[in-house]
Amino acid sequence: MQFKVLKTDPGSQARAGIMHTAHGVIKTPIFMPVGTQATVKAISPEDLQRLKAQIILGNTYHLYLRPGTDVIAHAGGLQKFSSWHKPILTDSGGYQVFSLSDLNKISEEGFAFQSHIDGSKHFFTPEKVVEIQRKLGSNIMMVLDECVPYPAEFRYVQKSNKITIGWAKRSLSTFANTECEHGFQQDIFAIVQGSTFPELRRECAQALVELDFPGYAIGGLSVGEPREEMYEITSVCTELLPKNKPRYLMGVGKPEDLLEGISRGIDMFDCILPTRNGRNGMAFTTFGPLSIKNARHRESLLPLDSACDCYTCQNFTRSYLRHLYNAHELLILKLLSYHNIHFYLRLMENARTAILNGNFSAWEKEFLEKYKNNDEIN
Amino acid sequence: MQFKVLKTDPGSQARAGIMHTAHGVIKTPIFMPVGTQATVKAISPEDLQRLKAQIILGNTYHLYLRPGTDVIAHAGGLQKFSSWHKPILTDSGGYQVFSLSDLNKISEEGFAFQSHIDGSKHFFTPEKVVEIQRKLGSNIMMVLDECVPYPAEFRYVQKSNKITIGWAKRSLSTFANTECEHGFQQDIFAIVQGSTFPELRRECAQALVELDFPGYAIGGLSVGEPREEMYEITSVCTELLPKNKPRYLMGVGKPEDLLEGISRGIDMFDCILPTRNGRNGMAFTTFGPLSIKNARHRESLLPLDSACDCYTCQNFTRSYLRHLYNAHELLILKLLSYHNIHFYLRLMENARTAILNGNFSAWEKEFLEKYKNNDEIN
Repeated sequence: MQFKVLKTDPGSQARAGIMHTAHGVIKTPIFMPVGTQATVKAISPEDLQRLKAQIILGNTYHLYLRPGTDVIAHAGGLQKFSSWHKPILTDSGGYQVFSLSDLNKISEEGFAFQSHIDGSKHFFTPEKVVEIQRKLGSNIMMVLDECVPYPAEFRYVQKSNKITIGWAKRSLSTFANTECEHGFQQDIFAIVQGSTFPELRRECAQALVELDFPGYAIGGLSVGEPREEMYEITSVCTELLPKNKPRYLMGVGKPEDLLEGISRGIDMFDCILPTRNGRNGMAFTTFGPLSIKNARHRESLLPLDSACDCYTCQNFTRSYLRHLYNAHELLILKLLSYHNIHFYLRLMENARTAILNGNFSAWEKEFLEKYKNNDEIN
Repeated sequence: MQFKVLKTDPGSQARAGIMHTAHGVIKTPIFMPVGTQATVKAISPEDLQRLKAQIILGNTYHLYLRPGTDVIAHAGGLQKFSSWHKPILTDSGGYQVFSLSDLNKISEEGFAFQSHIDGSKHFFTPEKVVEIQRKLGSNIMMVLDECVPYPAEFRYVQKSNKITIGWAKRSLSTFANTECEHGFQQDIFAIVQGSTFPELRRECAQALVELDFPGYAIGGLSVGEPREEMYEITSVCTELLPKNKPRYLMGVGKPEDLLEGISRGIDMFDCILPTRNGRNGMAFTTFGPLSIKNARHRESLLPLDSACDCYTCQNFTRSYLRHLYNAHELLILKLLSYHNIHFYLRLMENARTAILNGNFSAWEKEFLEKYKNNDEIN
């Protein structure tokens, strides 16, 4: 993994970097739209191009179950299969086994679980999950881990850490002894677990750093713990993670969480919020969140966000968007998802510019002032 | 209504024409994608532009109920409201009152009906429906009519014809005494009814022709009658309708029906098939209809239609599209709807070229030979 930090903010841990993959360059900090089933919900690959998305997520658990690893391998990997020709990161499935599947059972060997689609029985080992991701051809693979629910007992997490660390070792060894089935370089990231116990986070991070992965993720956050605890644990981890490697905070979060993450040294984020909230009629705007269902928008000829230059804001009024939502029209799902992804990607772009200009904290303050005082306009 | 027939096919009644509206020119024969609620389902206005759609449909019944005529008038009319800046035709609501609403009751005065959304009570008169369409600002309005169900008694249709003709007169008079609320020229078409009785079709057509409307539609077909009867009644009507005015066959139909309609002198069509069938996993292709659900497409790296240059066919395999369909992903609704509208619009474009080249019948035969022999490929 070629990764370079170009500049670090003088007033925080925030950093601007650049990452090279076989399918292109990624400028960090970056937000990765979630394309669980080899598609970002309601958004086409050409929409993603126009949004200037640099990397999207896929999910090993979902893709293994449907359409099946062989179907994607036959197409030449995820990029060719989905016609998204830029970088893809695939999550390992650890989180999905824990949150979606029925009757999952963890042992040192791996995860036994039943498909959420048809109840069929499956077994994931760290080795198998690397092999699947070799076939999927994701640019960045994730190791299998146990995502510990919140709250958790100290002793349970201690035990779980051992499994997660052991699995990381086995993943790395499989990674070293296999090759991408599609002829390009792939990378693999480890995932720091340890729930909200700083010493267990440190223990896990240190063990994983010793294994010398190309990049590190922080998992098991944004699972119900208080926001402040999430921020604190993020710092606990980034303090120990190597400065010259990318850091990815998994499944986080709201715009303000992304900025907190950046200021604590995070480079990469993913979250379903922009698409899921979009499908539920909620838009992220410069002036705070906006619910398009609100009756006050009935005849409003304003765009969602007067400071936004996306396709949705340049072409449609709140009045029309509200109508689409109320009439259950499919177009609203695309238009709000599109705007929200645009909002997240521009937020990261602006944060990066601010870091490079050395004024991240001032920029962040200005952004949050507008974003938090939304009563008048939204 | 400025309309000119540029060429008539020597071997049939097929004609190529050009129509001028305040929002642009329409080259006929034309297919009009259906945008019932001020949006073509799953398709954005920029998609429609790229598809080279020339005119789309809206529906008075739906738009009057939701978002309400006032909301659209406030936005400056349907084009501004929906950000589709080309021509729009609005159906009058006669068909929807008959097919969608509860407890509808017809009298000489008009239609009493209950909303299919909330059960609220409404009354449509021919005058009111013209006034609504004045506010909506559609380029082509349709008169209120009674769409007679199939099969119908001769005497019922005879009585219904009187109502439909009387309503057409009142519509034209309201049209003459009102103006578009948005400052541009609108036109109004009459609708020939008469079920499958040739003499009642002739009676209705003659009465409406005497009223001298800018254009004529044939309604009440494709409601369950045998295909041959639909074709025959179309001919009965077009024989009587003025040669120098546009003719619109409402709600029809399959690709082969459109060609039959063209050869019988029809200039305009609308139908929900390309979008509805698309949402149900069915694609219209050069080589016949294709169901993307079919297991044979599991690993197929072919496009939907190897002779198609649309976005869907240029970028996605059957394998990927089948996966999206099976995984209930929203993107499939757009990709199949987009391809199907493309198919219908190119079909009309090619028919027009053939008419202008004087070889419509030969072209039609060639098209149908490919389209009807689809076992091998689809």
